[in-house]
Amino acid sequence: MVTWSNMDTLASFGELLKTEKINLAEAMSGENGAQRVRNYTVPMAEGMAYNYAAKQVDEKILEALAKLAEEAQLSEKFKALYNGEMINTGEKRLVLHHLTRGQLGDAVVADGVDKRAFYLEQQEKIAEFANKVHAGEITNAAGEAFTTVVQIGIGGSDLGPRAMYLALENWAKVNDCFKMEAKFISNVDPDDAAGVLNSIDVSRSIFVLVSKSGTTLETLTNESFVKDALKNAGLDPSKHMIAVTSETSPLAKSDDYLAAFFMDDYIGGRFSSTSAVGGAVLSLAFGPEVFAQFLEGAAEEDKLSANEDMLKNPEMLDALIGIYERNVLGYPATTVLPYSQALSRFPAHLQQADMESNGKSVNRFGEPVNYPTGPVLFGEPGTNGQHSFYQLLHQGTDIVPLQFVGFKNSQIGTDVVIQDSTSQQKLCANVVAQIVAFACGKQDENRNKNFEGGRPSSIIIGDSLNPKSLGALLAHYENKIMFQGFVWNLNSFDQEGVQLGKVLAKKVLAHDTEGALKEYSDLMNI
Amino acid sequence: MVTWSNMDTLASFGELLKTEKINLAEAMSGENGAQRVRNYTVPMAEGMAYNYAAKQVDEKILEALAKLAEEAQLSEKFKALYNGEMINTGEKRLVLHHLTRGQLGDAVVADGVDKRAFYLEQQEKIAEFANKVHAGEITNAAGEAFTTVVQIGIGGSDLGPRAMYLALENWAKVNDCFKMEAKFISNVDPDDAAGVLNSIDVSRSIFVLVSKSGTTLETLTNESFVKDALKNAGLDPSKHMIAVTSETSPLAKSDDYLAAFFMDDYIGGRFSSTSAVGGAVLSLAFGPEVFAQFLEGAAEEDKLSANEDMLKNPEMLDALIGIYERNVLGYPATTVLPYSQALSRFPAHLQQADMESNGKSVNRFGEPVNYPTGPVLFGEPGTNGQHSFYQLLHQGTDIVPLQFVGFKNSQIGTDVVIQDSTSQQKLCANVVAQIVAFACGKQDENRNKNFEGGRPSSIIIGDSLNPKSLGALLAHYENKIMFQGFVWNLNSFDQEGVQLGKVLAKKVLAHDTEGALKEYSDLMNI
Repeated sequence: MVTWSNMDTLASFGELLKTEKINLAEAMSGENGAQRVRNYTVPMAEGMAYNYAAKQVDEKILEALAKLAEEAQLSEKFKALYNGEMINTGEKRLVLHHLTRGQLGDAVVADGVDKRAFYLEQQEKIAEFANKVHAGEITNAAGEAFTTVVQIGIGGSDLGPRAMYLALENWAKVNDCFKMEAKFISNVDPDDAAGVLNSIDVSRSIFVLVSKSGTTLETLTNESFVKDALKNAGLDPSKHMIAVTSETSPLAKSDDYLAAFFMDDYIGGRFSSTSAVGGAVLSLAFGPEVFAQFLEGAAEEDKLSANEDMLKNPEMLDALIGIYERNVLGYPATTVLPYSQALSRFPAHLQQADMESNGKSVNRFGEPVNYPTGPVLFGEPGTNGQHSFYQLLHQGTDIVPLQFVGFKNSQIGTDVVIQDSTSQQKLCANVVAQIVAFACGKQDENRNKNFEGGRPSSIIIGDSLNPKSLGALLAHYENKIMFQGFVWNLNSFDQEGVQLGKVLAKKVLAHDTEGALKEYSDLMNI
Repeated sequence: MVTWSNMDTLASFGELLKTEKINLAEAMSGENGAQRVRNYTVPMAEGMAYNYAAKQVDEKILEALAKLAEEAQLSEKFKALYNGEMINTGEKRLVLHHLTRGQLGDAVVADGVDKRAFYLEQQEKIAEFANKVHAGEITNAAGEAFTTVVQIGIGGSDLGPRAMYLALENWAKVNDCFKMEAKFISNVDPDDAAGVLNSIDVSRSIFVLVSKSGTTLETLTNESFVKDALKNAGLDPSKHMIAVTSETSPLAKSDDYLAAFFMDDYIGGRFSSTSAVGGAVLSLAFGPEVFAQFLEGAAEEDKLSANEDMLKNPEMLDALIGIYERNVLGYPATTVLPYSQALSRFPAHLQQADMESNGKSVNRFGEPVNYPTGPVLFGEPGTNGQHSFYQLLHQGTDIVPLQFVGFKNSQIGTDVVIQDSTSQQKLCANVVAQIVAFACGKQDENRNKNFEGGRPSSIIIGDSLNPKSLGALLAHYENKIMFQGFVWNLNSFDQEGVQLGKVLAKKVLAHDTEGALKEYSDLMNI
C-alpha cells in the first residue's frame, strides 16, 4: 500500500537538507574528477549511459537521495501506476502510456478490455493502413500515391510527434526507410495552416487529424482549413484524412475519414508519442517497423525505471538529482542541450512534458505545497547554443543545471576533416569541453575572463540516434518527470492550469466582456 | 559626462526597493483594470504599441523607475553610444549597429571612414548584387538562375537572420516579393550541413558564408562541407559562394567568393541582423527593398528609444519594468510569447540577444556585482505554448513575467470561420484572454482549479507583421537589452563566457587531456 505525502513531511527530506554540500570544481579536478566520471554512470537502454559525475553529489548525498526515493515509495508508486491503479486522481483516470510499448506488470483491464491488447491492436491497424499506403493500395482519387503526411494537432498531438519525426528524418533517409515527408499544422494562427498548405501538393497529401476528445478548437479549426483547401482543389476530403481520437469522440465513427485509430483517456497528450498519436504519422513517414523499434527502445528503458535500486535506475536517479537541485540548492530553471541537430525540437517537447506535468502548486489532494515544484525548462541543440545563451550559463549570476545529450556517431555519416578532426569529433569534443568548463571553471586575474565553475551538468551518452535510442531517450524523460511528480506529491497527469484561458477566450469571442478584458479586446479589434 | 555606477549604489534604487508593491489581481479588476489598459500604453513605430497595464506597476513605482532611469543616465549613455564613444570597454570597441539603419546623432568616424556611409555602401553593394541575381545577370555556370540561398553561420550570424527570414517568408510570398528560398547551416554537427545539402539542388544554390573574423571554426568547417558538395556535383565553389566578413579577415579579398560584403568589429554578432549579416540573405530572399523597409522600421524605433522621457520611450520603459521584476520582485526567468507563427524562431534569437548580452556577473570594470543580472529567457509562439508550458506559468510555484506580441491581422489572409469567428479572431481572443487570466486569476473552491492571478505580462500590439514592424520589433528588444545593461552597469557587448569551452575543445581535439577531460573524451571515443 502506498502513502502519498508531501515531500517536506518526509524525515529523509529533512536529512537531505542537513547533508553537507560539495564543492564541484574541487571534486571534478585531477584524478578525483577522472574517477567520478568512471564511477558516476548508469547504463541505459540501447547501450546508452547516464553520467552524473559533474552533478553536485557525492556518496553521502546519493545515500540521502536514495533514502528519500525509498521513503517517497517511488518504486511502489510506479508499480501501482503500471499495474493500473488510478494515479491521475484529478481526472480520475488510470495512467497507461507505458502499456503502449510493453507490459511491466499485471494485465490492466479497463472499460472491459485488456488495455495492452487494445494498444497493440491499434498499432497493428495503423501498420496495416500504412503498409497499404506505401504499397499504393490506398491512393488519392486519381490513383496516385500519397507523398506527404500532414499531422493536424496541438500540444501533445504536435510537439512530441514533430520532435520524433525530425529526430529520425535523416536517419530514415540514410537507412532506406523514408516513406513520406511529414508536415505539422498546430497553431490557430491562420498563417500556420495556410503556410503549410501552400508548401505542399494537397492532392498527394494525407492528413492525420489528432484530437482525443474530438473537440479541441484549434485542431477542428485547422481541420476546416484543410478541408477547404482540399475542396478548392476539387478533392474529396474524406479520401485524404484519417483520425486519431478516442473511441467515444465524434470523430471515431465518421464517414469524414478514411480510417480512425484510437487512443483513450488513460494516455495524456504529452505522453502520447508512443500511442496512435505518434504511431500514425511516424508509421506513415518511416514505416511501421521503425515505429515498432522506437517502442522497443522505450519499453527497454521502462524496465530500467522499474529497478528499485536508485543507483541502477537512470530515471529515478536523474529525478532525485533534479529534486536536490531544485529544493536543496534552489535553482529555478534547467536546460536540456542535445548535441545533435536531429534533436532540434526535442527540448520543446520536453518543455511541455515537464512544465505541464509538474508546474503545479497543489498536491494530489488539492492542498497547497510549501516547496518549489517543476522548474522552467528550455534548450537548444549544441553547438548552436554555445554561440547563443551559454554566456549566461557560464558567467551569469544564477546557476542553471544542465543536461547534455551526445552521440558518438552522426546519423548521415557524411563528414569532413578540418584541422585534423571530423565535424563529429568536433561536436563530441565540444560537449566534453563544456561539461568540464562548467564544472571546473578557470581562474583568471581579469575577472571578466574568470570562470567560477561549480555549474552542474550531466550527460546522456549514446552510440547513435536511431529509433531505439530515441525511444529510450523519450521514456527516460517521461519516467523522470513521473518520479519527480511522485516526490513532490503532485498529480503530474492533469493540466487544470490551461482551463481559465480557454474560458476567457470564449467570452471574448462571444463579446461577453467587461473591464480589462473588454479594453484589450477593443485594442485587438475583436 | 556619464558616470558608470553599480545599480545598488544608486539612491534611486534604494528608493525603488522601498516603494510599496501593488496587488495586480486587484488593480486589474473592474473599471480600474479597464483604465489601466487605456492609460498604460506607449506608441511604438509602425502603429504598434507597448501596453504594460498588466505589469506590477503603478504611478509611484513608475515614478521610482523613472528616477532610476535618470540617475543611471540611460539617455546619456545611449547618446554616448550612438555618437561613437567606446562603450564596449572589454574589447575596446565602439557599438555601432544603430548606424546600419540610421543616424541618431553625430557622424561617427572610425578607422578613417564615416561609419554610416560605410554601412550604407555595403547595403547598396548587396542590393546591386541581389538585383543582378534576381535579374539573371549572375547565374550558375550553366546560365541557370539561382533558386536557393543558404546562409552558413552560427550564433548571431544564424539566429537573427533565420528568425527574420521565417518572419517574412509568407509575407513576401503574398506580397509578390519572394525571390528565393533561404536555408541555414549552423551546427558543427555534420548532420546539419548534410541534411540541408541533401534537401537542395546545389547547382542552383548560392551560399553566404558569414564570419566576422573569418576564423569561426564551425563556419569554416561547414564551408568545407559545402565546397565538397559543390565539387562532388562538378561545380566550381567560387561561383556559388559569397562572403560576409570584416575587411581585415582572410575571407575579404579571396578569389574563393563571387563577392564579399563587409561588417566590422563595431557590430556584435547578436546585433548584426540589420548589417550585411542579415542584409545579404534577406536581400537575396526578398529583394533589397524589403530589407530597406526592415531597416526603416528599426530606425524609427531607435528614434523612440532616444526619448529622454521614460514614459514615452517603449524600450526604456520595458527595460526598467524588467529590472523591477528581476531585482525587486526577484523573478529569475522571463518569456516572450509571440501570437504569430511567423515569429516561431524570434524567441530563440532573443534568447541569444538577451542572455549573451546581460548574463554576466561582473560590471564593465571587471568587478563583481551584488545583484542578479540577465534572466533566463525562453519562448514559443501562441497558441502552441498554451497547450504546452502555460500550465506552469498559470499554476507553478514560481512567477514568470511574460511578454506577449500580437497582431490584428494575419500575413497570408486566408482564413476560415468556425463557431462564428475566424482563426485570426480566435488567435487575438486567446492572447487577450491569457493576459487577463494571468493577471486576475479566478477563485475556485477546488484548489486544483484555482488561479491565484498576480502574474504579470505586457503586450506589444501591431496591425500586422511586415518588414517595417519586424524591424521595429527587433530594435525594441535590442535597445531594451542595452538599457538593462546600462542599469546593471554591465558591458553588454562582449561575451568572454564563451571562451573557456573553445579552449578546452581544442585541447580535446589535440588529445592534450587529463583528469575528467580525458575520461569524458574516452567515453565519447574522441
